Amino acid sequence: MFCRIVAGEIPAKVVHESENVLAFRDISPQAPTHVLVIPKEHFPHAAALAQARPEVTAELVAAAGVIAEQEGISEAGYRLLFNTGEQAGQTVFHAHLHVLGGEWLGGLVGGELR
Amino acid sequence: MFCRIVAGEIPAKVVHESENVLAFRDISPQAPTHVLVIPKEHFPHAAALAQARPEVTAELVAAAGVIAEQEGISEAGYRLLFNTGEQAGQTVFHAHLHVLGGEWLGGLVGGELR
Repeated sequence: MFCRIVAGEIPAKVVHESENVLAFRDISPQAPTHVLVIPKEHFPHAAALAQARPEVTAELVAAAGVIAEQEGISEAGYRLLFNTGEQAGQTVFHAHLHVLGGEWLGGLVGGELR
Repeated sequence: MFCRIVAGEIPAKVVHESENVLAFRDISPQAPTHVLVIPKEHFPHAAALAQARPEVTAELVAAAGVIAEQEGISEAGYRLLFNTGEQAGQTVFHAHLHVLGGEWLGGLVGGELR
Protein backbone atom coordinates (compact mmCIF):
# COMPACT_ATOMS: atom_id res chain seq x y z
CA MET A 1 0.00 0.00 0.00
CA PHE A 2 2.80 2.44 0.87
CA CYS A 3 4.33 1.87 -2.58
CA ARG A 4 1.06 3.21 -3.99
CA ILE A 5 1.38 6.30 -1.78
CA VAL A 6 4.96 6.78 -3.09
CA ALA A 7 3.60 6.42 -6.64
CA GLY A 8 0.94 9.04 -5.91
CA GLU A 9 -1.89 6.56 -6.51
CA ILE A 10 -3.22 6.87 -2.95
CA PRO A 11 -3.39 10.36 -1.44
CA ALA A 12 -1.56 11.15 1.80
CA LYS A 13 -0.93 14.21 3.94
CA VAL A 14 2.80 14.53 3.19
CA VAL A 15 4.88 16.41 5.77
CA HIS A 16 8.40 15.74 4.43
CA GLU A 17 9.92 14.37 1.25
CA SER A 18 13.42 13.76 -0.13
CA GLU A 19 14.87 11.64 -2.92
CA ASN A 20 14.77 8.48 -0.79
CA VAL A 21 12.22 9.16 1.95
CA LEU A 22 8.57 10.12 2.25
CA ALA A 23 6.74 11.10 5.46
CA PHE A 24 2.99 11.47 5.86
CA ARG A 25 0.36 11.53 8.62
CA ASP A 26 -1.00 8.19 9.87
CA ILE A 27 -4.66 7.88 8.86
CA SER A 28 -5.47 6.42 12.30
CA PRO A 29 -3.37 8.55 14.67
CA GLN A 30 -2.42 7.04 18.05
CA ALA A 31 -1.19 10.37 19.45
CA PRO A 32 -1.67 14.10 18.65
CA THR A 33 1.31 13.83 16.29
CA HIS A 34 1.56 10.54 14.41
CA VAL A 35 3.65 10.56 11.23
CA LEU A 36 5.01 7.60 9.25
CA VAL A 37 8.45 7.92 7.65
CA ILE A 38 9.09 5.40 4.88
CA PRO A 39 11.81 4.56 2.37
CA LYS A 40 10.50 5.06 -1.16
CA GLU A 41 12.12 1.76 -2.10
CA HIS A 42 10.21 -1.27 -0.84
CA PHE A 43 11.55 -3.32 2.07
CA PRO A 44 9.27 -5.51 4.20
CA HIS A 45 10.66 -4.38 7.56
CA ALA A 46 13.32 -2.27 9.27
CA ALA A 47 16.04 -4.93 9.53
CA ALA A 48 15.85 -5.68 5.79
CA LEU A 49 16.08 -1.96 5.07
CA ALA A 50 19.07 -1.55 7.42
CA GLN A 51 20.91 -4.46 5.80
CA ALA A 52 20.33 -3.22 2.25
CA ARG A 53 20.32 0.58 2.56
CA PRO A 54 22.11 1.80 5.70
CA GLU A 55 22.19 5.41 4.48
CA VAL A 56 18.42 5.44 3.91
CA THR A 57 17.82 3.90 7.35
CA ALA A 58 19.75 6.73 8.98
CA GLU A 59 17.91 9.24 6.81
CA LEU A 60 14.57 7.96 8.17
CA VAL A 61 15.73 8.61 11.74
CA ALA A 62 17.23 12.01 10.87
CA ALA A 63 14.04 12.97 9.00
CA ALA A 64 12.02 11.94 12.06
CA GLY A 65 14.07 14.42 14.11
CA VAL A 66 13.38 17.19 11.58
CA ILE A 67 9.66 16.34 11.59
CA ALA A 68 9.62 16.43 15.41
CA GLU A 69 11.03 19.97 15.19
CA GLN A 70 8.42 20.96 12.58
CA GLU A 71 5.64 19.52 14.73
CA GLY A 72 6.87 21.34 17.85
CA ILE A 73 7.36 18.12 19.84
CA SER A 74 11.15 17.87 19.89
CA GLU A 75 11.50 19.59 23.28
CA ALA A 76 8.67 17.82 25.11
CA GLY A 77 9.60 14.46 23.62
CA TYR A 78 8.68 11.92 20.99
CA ARG A 79 8.87 8.24 20.23
CA LEU A 80 10.31 6.58 17.11
CA LEU A 81 9.10 3.04 16.56
CA PHE A 82 9.42 0.26 13.97
CA ASN A 83 7.13 -2.74 14.35
CA THR A 84 8.12 -6.01 12.67
CA GLY A 85 5.73 -8.95 12.47
CA GLU A 86 2.44 -9.98 13.99
CA GLN A 87 3.20 -9.84 17.75
CA ALA A 88 4.36 -6.24 17.31
CA GLY A 89 1.21 -5.31 15.41
CA GLN A 90 2.85 -4.61 12.02
CA THR A 91 -0.02 -4.36 9.53
CA VAL A 92 1.68 -2.90 6.43
CA PHE A 93 4.70 -4.84 5.22
CA HIS A 94 6.61 -1.89 3.84
CA ALA A 95 9.12 -0.67 6.46
CA HIS A 96 7.85 2.45 8.25
CA LEU A 97 9.06 4.46 11.21
CA HIS A 98 6.31 5.83 13.45
CA VAL A 99 6.91 9.31 14.91
CA LEU A 100 4.62 9.81 17.91
CA GLY A 101 4.27 12.75 20.27
CA GLY A 102 2.20 15.57 21.67
CA GLU A 103 1.22 13.94 24.95
CA TRP A 104 2.62 11.59 27.62
CA LEU A 105 3.22 8.39 25.63
CA GLY A 106 3.22 5.82 28.43
CA GLY A 107 5.04 2.48 28.49
CA LEU A 108 6.88 0.82 25.62
CA VAL A 109 4.42 -2.05 25.20
CA GLY A 110 0.91 -3.03 26.23
CA GLY A 111 -0.90 0.11 25.11
CA GLU A 112 -4.58 -0.10 24.15
CA LEU A 113 -5.21 0.11 20.42
CA ARG A 114 -7.20 3.25 19.70
CA MET B 1 25.42 5.66 32.66
CA PHE B 2 25.62 3.79 29.36
CA CYS B 3 29.10 5.23 28.75
CA ARG B 4 30.11 3.49 31.98
CA ILE B 5 28.69 0.20 30.64
CA VAL B 6 30.72 0.72 27.42
CA ALA B 7 33.81 1.37 29.59
CA GLY B 8 33.16 -1.84 31.53
CA GLU B 9 32.69 0.08 34.80
CA ILE B 10 29.08 -1.10 35.22
CA PRO B 11 28.33 -4.76 34.47
CA ALA B 12 25.73 -5.68 31.86
CA LYS B 13 24.42 -8.86 30.24
CA VAL B 14 25.90 -8.26 26.77
CA VAL B 15 24.20 -10.08 23.88
CA HIS B 16 26.00 -8.45 20.91
CA GLU B 17 29.06 -6.29 20.39
CA SER B 18 30.91 -4.74 17.45
CA GLU B 19 33.42 -1.91 17.05
CA ASN B 20 30.69 0.75 17.21
CA VAL B 21 27.73 -0.90 18.92
CA LEU B 22 26.96 -2.65 22.21
CA ALA B 23 23.74 -4.51 23.07
CA PHE B 24 22.72 -5.72 26.52
CA ARG B 25 19.61 -6.79 28.41
CA ASP B 26 17.46 -4.08 30.02
CA ILE B 27 17.67 -4.38 33.80
CA SER B 28 13.92 -3.72 34.08
CA PRO B 29 12.48 -5.72 31.16
CA GLN B 30 9.10 -4.63 29.76
CA ALA B 31 8.67 -7.83 27.69
CA PRO B 32 10.13 -11.39 27.69
CA THR B 33 12.90 -10.11 25.39
CA HIS B 34 14.06 -6.57 26.13
CA VAL B 35 17.50 -5.62 24.85
CA LEU B 36 19.05 -2.15 24.47
CA VAL B 37 21.30 -1.46 21.47
CA ILE B 38 23.54 1.57 21.92
CA PRO B 39 26.29 3.38 20.01
CA LYS B 40 29.54 3.22 21.97
CA GLU B 41 30.05 6.89 21.17
CA HIS B 42 27.85 9.21 23.24
CA PHE B 43 24.87 10.97 21.64
CA PRO B 44 21.95 12.24 23.75
CA HIS B 45 19.21 10.87 21.47
CA ALA B 46 18.50 9.11 18.17
CA ALA B 47 18.21 12.19 15.95
CA ALA B 48 21.60 13.51 17.10
CA LEU B 49 23.12 10.09 16.41
CA ALA B 50 21.50 9.92 12.94
CA GLN B 51 22.80 13.39 12.03
CA ALA B 52 26.35 12.68 13.16
CA ARG B 53 26.84 8.97 12.46
CA PRO B 54 24.43 7.63 9.84
CA GLU B 55 26.36 4.38 9.42
CA VAL B 56 26.22 3.65 13.16
CA THR B 57 22.48 4.43 13.22
CA ALA B 58 21.87 1.83 10.53
CA GLU B 59 24.14 -0.60 12.36
CA LEU B 60 21.95 -0.30 15.48
CA VAL B 61 18.87 -1.29 13.45
CA ALA B 62 20.70 -4.10 11.63
CA ALA B 63 22.11 -5.37 14.95
CA ALA B 64 18.58 -5.33 16.39
CA GLY B 65 17.50 -7.63 13.55
CA VAL B 66 20.38 -10.02 14.30
CA ILE B 67 19.50 -9.97 18.00
CA ALA B 68 15.85 -10.72 17.18
CA GLU B 69 17.06 -13.80 15.26
CA GLN B 70 19.27 -14.85 18.19
CA GLU B 71 16.40 -14.41 20.62
CA GLY B 72 14.01 -16.43 18.44
CA ILE B 73 11.52 -13.55 18.07
CA SER B 74 12.13 -12.55 14.46
CA GLU B 75 9.32 -14.71 13.07
CA ALA B 76 6.66 -13.89 15.68
CA GLY B 77 7.56 -10.22 15.69
CA TYR B 78 9.37 -7.52 17.59
CA ARG B 79 9.35 -3.79 18.20
CA LEU B 80 12.27 -1.37 17.81
CA LEU B 81 11.85 1.88 19.69
CA PHE B 82 13.80 5.06 20.42
CA ASN B 83 12.37 7.41 23.06
CA THR B 84 13.49 11.05 23.04
CA GLY B 85 12.62 13.40 25.88
CA GLU B 86 10.33 13.43 28.87
CA GLN B 87 6.90 12.83 27.28
CA ALA B 88 8.29 9.69 25.65
CA GLY B 89 9.73 8.45 28.93
CA GLN B 90 13.43 8.70 28.01
CA THR B 91 15.33 8.26 31.27
CA VAL B 92 18.93 7.75 30.09
CA PHE B 93 20.25 10.47 27.80
CA HIS B 94 22.55 8.26 25.75
CA ALA B 95 20.76 7.16 22.56
CA HIS B 96 19.45 3.58 22.86
CA LEU B 97 17.27 1.41 20.67
CA HIS B 98 14.89 -0.86 22.58
CA VAL B 99 14.33 -4.34 21.10
CA LEU B 100 11.13 -5.80 22.54
CA GLY B 101 9.41 -9.12 21.86
CA GLY B 102 8.27 -12.51 23.06
CA GLU B 103 4.59 -11.69 23.55
CA TRP B 104 1.80 -9.58 22.01
CA LEU B 105 3.14 -6.04 22.41
CA GLY B 106 -0.08 -4.03 22.20
CA GLY B 107 -0.48 -0.45 21.02
CA LEU B 108 2.27 2.03 20.19
CA VAL B 109 1.60 4.33 23.12
CA GLY B 110 -0.23 4.35 26.43
CA GLY B 111 1.17 1.16 27.90
CA GLU B 112 1.37 0.77 31.68
CA LEU B 113 4.88 1.04 33.06
CA ARG B 114 5.82 -2.30 34.60
